[in-house]
Amino acid sequence: MSMNGAEALVETLFRSGVDTCFANPGTSEMQLVAAIDGQYGMRAILGLFEGAVTGMADGYGRMADKPAITLLHLGPGLANGLANLHNARRAGSPVINVVGDHATYHLQYNSPLTSDLAGVARPMSDWLKASISERDLPQAGAEAYAAAMHYPGRIATLAVPANHAWTEGSSPAAPAALSAAPQSPDAAITDAAAALREAHGPTALFLGGRALREGALEQAGRIAAATGARLICETFTARLQRGAGRVAVERLPYFGEQGAEYLKDMKAIVFCGCEPPVSFFAYPGKPSWLSPEGARLVRLASMDEDTENALTRLADALNAPAEPALVQAAAVPAADVTGPLDPTKIAAIVAALMPDNAIVSDEAATAGLMIFPATAGAPKHDWMMLAGGAIGQGLPLAAGAAVACPDRKVIALQADGSGMYTLQALWTMARENLDVTTLILNNGSYAILNIELMRVGVQNPGPKALSMLDLRNPALDWVQMSEGLGVPARRATTAEELREALAEALAHKGPRLVEAIL
Amino acid sequence: MSMNGAEALVETLFRSGVDTCFANPGTSEMQLVAAIDGQYGMRAILGLFEGAVTGMADGYGRMADKPAITLLHLGPGLANGLANLHNARRAGSPVINVVGDHATYHLQYNSPLTSDLAGVARPMSDWLKASISERDLPQAGAEAYAAAMHYPGRIATLAVPANHAWTEGSSPAAPAALSAAPQSPDAAITDAAAALREAHGPTALFLGGRALREGALEQAGRIAAATGARLICETFTARLQRGAGRVAVERLPYFGEQGAEYLKDMKAIVFCGCEPPVSFFAYPGKPSWLSPEGARLVRLASMDEDTENALTRLADALNAPAEPALVQAAAVPAADVTGPLDPTKIAAIVAALMPDNAIVSDEAATAGLMIFPATAGAPKHDWMMLAGGAIGQGLPLAAGAAVACPDRKVIALQADGSGMYTLQALWTMARENLDVTTLILNNGSYAILNIELMRVGVQNPGPKALSMLDLRNPALDWVQMSEGLGVPARRATTAEELREALAEALAHKGPRLVEAIL
Repeated sequence: MSMNGAEALVETLFRSGVDTCFANPGTSEMQLVAAIDGQYGMRAILGLFEGAVTGMADGYGRMADKPAITLLHLGPGLANGLANLHNARRAGSPVINVVGDHATYHLQYNSPLTSDLAGVARPMSDWLKASISERDLPQAGAEAYAAAMHYPGRIATLAVPANHAWTEGSSPAAPAALSAAPQSPDAAITDAAAALREAHGPTALFLGGRALREGALEQAGRIAAATGARLICETFTARLQRGAGRVAVERLPYFGEQGAEYLKDMKAIVFCGCEPPVSFFAYPGKPSWLSPEGARLVRLASMDEDTENALTRLADALNAPAEPALVQAAAVPAADVTGPLDPTKIAAIVAALMPDNAIVSDEAATAGLMIFPATAGAPKHDWMMLAGGAIGQGLPLAAGAAVACPDRKVIALQADGSGMYTLQALWTMARENLDVTTLILNNGSYAILNIELMRVGVQNPGPKALSMLDLRNPALDWVQMSEGLGVPARRATTAEELREALAEALAHKGPRLVEAIL
Repeated sequence: MSMNGAEALVETLFRSGVDTCFANPGTSEMQLVAAIDGQYGMRAILGLFEGAVTGMADGYGRMADKPAITLLHLGPGLANGLANLHNARRAGSPVINVVGDHATYHLQYNSPLTSDLAGVARPMSDWLKASISERDLPQAGAEAYAAAMHYPGRIATLAVPANHAWTEGSSPAAPAALSAAPQSPDAAITDAAAALREAHGPTALFLGGRALREGALEQAGRIAAATGARLICETFTARLQRGAGRVAVERLPYFGEQGAEYLKDMKAIVFCGCEPPVSFFAYPGKPSWLSPEGARLVRLASMDEDTENALTRLADALNAPAEPALVQAAAVPAADVTGPLDPTKIAAIVAALMPDNAIVSDEAATAGLMIFPATAGAPKHDWMMLAGGAIGQGLPLAAGAAVACPDRKVIALQADGSGMYTLQALWTMARENLDVTTLILNNGSYAILNIELMRVGVQNPGPKALSMLDLRNPALDWVQMSEGLGVPARRATTAEELREALAEALAHKGPRLVEAIL
């Protein structure tokens, strides 16, 4: 059967294992749209803005551990998706961007939408290729899949000139061989074991990336049992498996000086799935590097090495017991709170209502800070955070996770300011009837920036400065916005109202939004 | 007085002529926020998403002919603004992006928000620089202003490391000298005159960029009077000054084959302020290059050369009369339409209600196609279009134009699909009480893509393909979204309702939205 390039590409991607496409196409992608239409096994999910599309692909990738494709329109469409690709990349999510380009012969005319597509892609792509003709396009797709599946997950961007998509005479390529996750060298195991054994004082495992999955944490808990090492995770984790019955980790505080204080007594820090802790931002006179001077630092496994394997080998090298330490007991704070909302009451209510096996997309920022500790002993769940720091991730991440895991409840904890970046994701939740309960924490402010303004040394900020951090004039009405986007919504100003509205939303299978006013 | 780098930079920009900042700052920009706070002459306008910020800067630049600054947060924040910077660049708008970066010594730690900022900036920047210290930062700001003011307007991006912003010991730099607009060579005038005089058949001036301002068009009208040349403008113009009493131009049809048909009899085409016409996209078997074979093509002035000067010299070389031809008479279609809305009725109503000296931001796409011809003889106005083709421009462009021209009514003609990209701009309209009436043309569809799907050769698209072009499931409720963002809104489903709602909105000084259901 004769296929055009688009059909052969989509067939190749499907045979490789891709069955989900998050799309915001334009004219140059119409052949790809038609090819996806013709591929019975490929689900197509429309996003109304590319930042929502790439954020959904990130959420899908984090939960499915395999890539969806995004379908994006030329350089400017890809540009709109870059910030959430930055987050996906930092999270180690597998994503394949399929970006239409002008027909190769059309580029010389520099028509209005022409831009440097490769230049736009490069800063946020681990792998980047454009097809040379309709004949190599499917092979490039197979390579993109293998690149995205590079452990733990990478961003692969494939530019597809429109004429390669529409030209007949192509045929599917065989799926590419996937490489196994690289393993830590034996020396890393030996060094880490020695560092933990020989330290004259407290030690810690500093864990990130795939080291925060249940199986890896089980091994970390064995190491803790053998050595007394504390288990500390990155402040912003891609996907942390936690809750009652799982090995618990402490979370490094956000502000650099607090992080440094937190670690100051450590004599050895073994890091696994991440690099040593550093502060998120620089501040005058405050540390960027957070490990104490003189502490022994050992890389057990980088983000790109098999963390569970490395932790297992280390536990065995330490003759650790089979049973892990630090297993979390079931426990949540008392939820019989009443009256006007504050972060502590919100946290208690969320923790009390969290169903088993939930997925949490946490972009709650300051107003939600108490929810993470309050849910430590809630039923087991996956907790996803802003691994790359580019706000506007939370709502699409939740939507993408719900696509990947249709049988699990997804809870989006969303601050108002960052939620505004990609609120279009609510529409996709409605369209696909995704089982996402969104809790908007509306404090009418970029609250974190009021703190940061002081921390960088600004004294007595004036009204103009403060106005740039303020969202109250006019107030954002998330109930109206949500319903305008098709997601039924309620507002809560008291603990009683929040408990009732959140319980109702969680009991419903499908999208709901609750706006909590602080 | 000792200044830190941020203060010296902001003072330099103010002395150079910048008095407006569109901002979406983060931690690394807090010193810049404080410096703007301390600069009494600098207005700070918050946008809730960077695409809104850069789109507002484009609208401001098109109307003010001088740059505002944008204040953006690191690589990912800039990335969110790239698509509208693409549009601004294609429009020849002056814009200065001030992008905070991590402190220089912090970059080595590769903290979560670290990215290749220069790589992100490069594809959409004409000028790009990062300061070396707090001491050269102000001078870099002065250079950025001169770069942005390069005729007709350019995109200048200045990266400001946080430690340069906060370090004391800097001082303002003198404003940089601005270069005059380059002028066309005499040979271009001579060639153009010869081409128009010697052609055996119809001729045209093909006009774009600054050639569509009133003064330049007056000269083009003189040339038409002398030679009979038709005046044709680019399909998507940055800013066209038109309406009753002004020299009228024809608009090249959007689809390439229609454009080629439109031009097929031309024996000579003199282009000014733009390059020869090409199709927006490529299609199988359809032309990209639209000028007829054998026609004499002459570049009178490029986009970067002084178009009014070139047209004046050409008119004089042709001994053209002082009075232009093709002056538009006052005339609008009858507006006594009734019943369910369609594009023709909407066009008649808009044309009848358009106030004198309005500014139109046109991202109305297919549903608004009839409004442009219907308003040809409306009171004089400026008409701004999607010069770069990256959708999501219309609402922020309108907001930025309203900031630049507070005494003029701005009308945003906005399609539903593209409006969803940067709807956050509505909130800024409310916050700043900008005098913008937004007319949403809600056809529940990426309607243009249904046409494009056929045009690229897709036969019998299936339900999955069509669903990717459809916005009806669920329907977007723009009244709710607008009110959620603080802009009062009404819905109209009939001509009677639209006339009444639009008249009320236009009579009010401040933001209003009317959703027209098609």
